[in-house]
Amino acid sequence: MNDMKNVMVKMGLDAWNGYLNRTGKLFDELSDEQLNNEVSPGRNTGIYLYGHLIAVHDSMLPLLGLGEKLYPELEQPFIKDADKSGHTFPVASVLRNYWKEVNAKLATAFATLSADDWFARHMSVSEEDFKNEPHRNKLNVLLSRTSHLASHYGQVVFLQGKSE
Amino acid sequence: MNDMKNVMVKMGLDAWNGYLNRTGKLFDELSDEQLNNEVSPGRNTGIYLYGHLIAVHDSMLPLLGLGEKLYPELEQPFIKDADKSGHTFPVASVLRNYWKEVNAKLATAFATLSADDWFARHMSVSEEDFKNEPHRNKLNVLLSRTSHLASHYGQVVFLQGKSE
Repeated sequence: MNDMKNVMVKMGLDAWNGYLNRTGKLFDELSDEQLNNEVSPGRNTGIYLYGHLIAVHDSMLPLLGLGEKLYPELEQPFIKDADKSGHTFPVASVLRNYWKEVNAKLATAFATLSADDWFARHMSVSEEDFKNEPHRNKLNVLLSRTSHLASHYGQVVFLQGKSE
Repeated sequence: MNDMKNVMVKMGLDAWNGYLNRTGKLFDELSDEQLNNEVSPGRNTGIYLYGHLIAVHDSMLPLLGLGEKLYPELEQPFIKDADKSGHTFPVASVLRNYWKEVNAKLATAFATLSADDWFARHMSVSEEDFKNEPHRNKLNVLLSRTSHLASHYGQVVFLQGKSE
């Protein structure tokens, strides 16, 4: 049983790390000026999507029972509110640092999880409900956040080649 | 063991069906004229991404050992070649039908797979290699194609609100 669980966890982590590395590399290659552009006319800016992904990944820490958020102040401007809602965003260099910190903390925490831990409930489902819905586990959060990340990766890539 | 495999298969299928339904609904709501627009200036057109996703999903049939491709002629214009390579694409109404046919065939075939089948090798890995790399299974193909679909969903959504 545990062998098979390990295989499944590897599948989930490989997919997550694949998109996380691609997206991190993409943000690294974009200049601060490029990040200020909209990914498509009238759509979100690169800087908003950067903060959005950091905030969503930061919120995985409590959701997976791995600790408190590092930057809870990002939730309002980058998750609850849309881009261009009047918030002053952190400058790009600050977000570049936050990206590294949040994803490093996640990676360190993931390394402490056993395969059984990954198949245990996440923190938004009760023990009661989890008995009937065992798919609502931590690994499912990772799968879901991987697709979310991929959907925004496909947008941020449009900033490549935009004027610096 | 099989209980856990079933849970994992449900996780994978839920994620796939979630993005597939969202993307199918999005294409349905876009007019033929909107599909002719680029998703962002200088980027792929909606019609190219429509054909690309159909062709990639069609190629899942042989890769998962579920049969031959329905529309092998889509591979050259929509996978091997980039948009604007000089191909005359099928008109939108034809692609709308192809989308339904390919995804219906996949859904029917998926329904025949047991949890053990999903954890068996896909057709691009040898039995020999699979012994050492058991994550290279059919379910992993589904996870990978879900992220691929999500990355393009995030782009096609930009066609909403474009001029008809």
